[in-house]
Amino acid sequence: MRLKLIVAYDGSSFAGWQSQRGGGSIQDVLEAAVLSVCGHPVRVHGSGRTDAGVHAIGQCCHIDVADTRMTPENWLHALNTKLPPQVRVMSAKCVDDSFHARFSANGKRYRYHVICAPVLPPMDHNRAWLVREDLDLERIRSTALLFVGCHDFSRFSANRGTGVIDPHRTIRRLLVATRGQSVFFTVEGDGFLYKMVRMIVAALVDCGRGGLHPERIEAMLCGLEQKSTLVAPAGGLTLVKVFYGRRTASRGHV
Amino acid sequence: MRLKLIVAYDGSSFAGWQSQRGGGSIQDVLEAAVLSVCGHPVRVHGSGRTDAGVHAIGQCCHIDVADTRMTPENWLHALNTKLPPQVRVMSAKCVDDSFHARFSANGKRYRYHVICAPVLPPMDHNRAWLVREDLDLERIRSTALLFVGCHDFSRFSANRGTGVIDPHRTIRRLLVATRGQSVFFTVEGDGFLYKMVRMIVAALVDCGRGGLHPERIEAMLCGLEQKSTLVAPAGGLTLVKVFYGRRTASRGHV
Repeated sequence: MRLKLIVAYDGSSFAGWQSQRGGGSIQDVLEAAVLSVCGHPVRVHGSGRTDAGVHAIGQCCHIDVADTRMTPENWLHALNTKLPPQVRVMSAKCVDDSFHARFSANGKRYRYHVICAPVLPPMDHNRAWLVREDLDLERIRSTALLFVGCHDFSRFSANRGTGVIDPHRTIRRLLVATRGQSVFFTVEGDGFLYKMVRMIVAALVDCGRGGLHPERIEAMLCGLEQKSTLVAPAGGLTLVKVFYGRRTASRGHV
Repeated sequence: MRLKLIVAYDGSSFAGWQSQRGGGSIQDVLEAAVLSVCGHPVRVHGSGRTDAGVHAIGQCCHIDVADTRMTPENWLHALNTKLPPQVRVMSAKCVDDSFHARFSANGKRYRYHVICAPVLPPMDHNRAWLVREDLDLERIRSTALLFVGCHDFSRFSANRGTGVIDPHRTIRRLLVATRGQSVFFTVEGDGFLYKMVRMIVAALVDCGRGGLHPERIEAMLCGLEQKSTLVAPAGGLTLVKVFYGRRTASRGHV
């Protein structure tokens, strides 16, 4: 039986999604919970990685389990009993064997939270990026549109030797919403290069405080300028949703 | 110079507001920060206590400082440099010597966050009370009105030998707002007995899931029934605002 799990986590105290020697990743914690429920090691396949400190409310993964006496509902409760409160399985359902959390994904939505204020409220510690300067939101909004569409995003990604050959990605949506002192960036696309969302947000914020000129961002997207060196802090980023359906296969990961 | 400070904190990792042997309270942490800024011990006077695990976005306190070269703005930044990120001074201003954070207060507003869902989202761990049953919100709303006004709240307070003589308090407002799976209780009053807000919320939630009958709550408020024994978890509670002005003096504390 293949189970599709929607997983939420507060990434503050974890070494990112991907399993690593010594544990401490979300995947490690999930695999330990599955092991303790069913008694033998089971691989947890995620839709893609998230970095250390990045959060998720809708990460998706799948597991193959043998015990057919347990319903998806039973699995949800059993796993949550074994997991730390910073990681929760929000839903579990049976899916066809053709479903694969990574290869069936055709898009992802991220949200980035910036707070423009003199002081970061303690409840937002590790959950938002404090920007003390005033931001020109009109300039940010118009510049954000430059990223929408299919572009070579290699100037907005950190090298990691991940073997990604084609650096083209399609951003379907990049919205900028404000509420009080908060600015929320919603970025949706078919796939993301390493640190791509955080580098796009950092470029937009720098542009909004009068630094980086929109024309330089355009030149980077055309490959005429060097890489951006700004990366927004991990804690402001949340993986909101992974999309599945009949579109093209997902490429790469954040 | 007397400074009025608005303080916010994530109460999860603290032993409540009030100073205690061995430290670990918000007051201890603030007094340590003031000491390290000005070099000698200074008492931090809060508007009242909050329990271990209770949060604040608008706790108020005052300090008397001698060094007149530092502006309130300087104090704000200096204190925040010394404080852990879970405690922040959100604003600082000079006030008249007649102002006293506790004795000048004439009211407080608290908010309590309940989440009605099968699973508590990890970002709400230690910040909301998970209630798995469906709640009858109409019943909660109509019952909430029973608490509004001036009542003897001794049946909705935990004994602590605090020497409170008159158990009458006036609740000026008790509002119930919903957003998605969240239910927010906003409670505003001239003062609160020990654990009073958490006991009122617990009674209302129990009433909403078909337990406690509204008539029993009414009987408790009339002194005809025994004390309520239900207390909502500390993590769901936030001190939102302390009111100052020309009304009567504040009494007691939560």
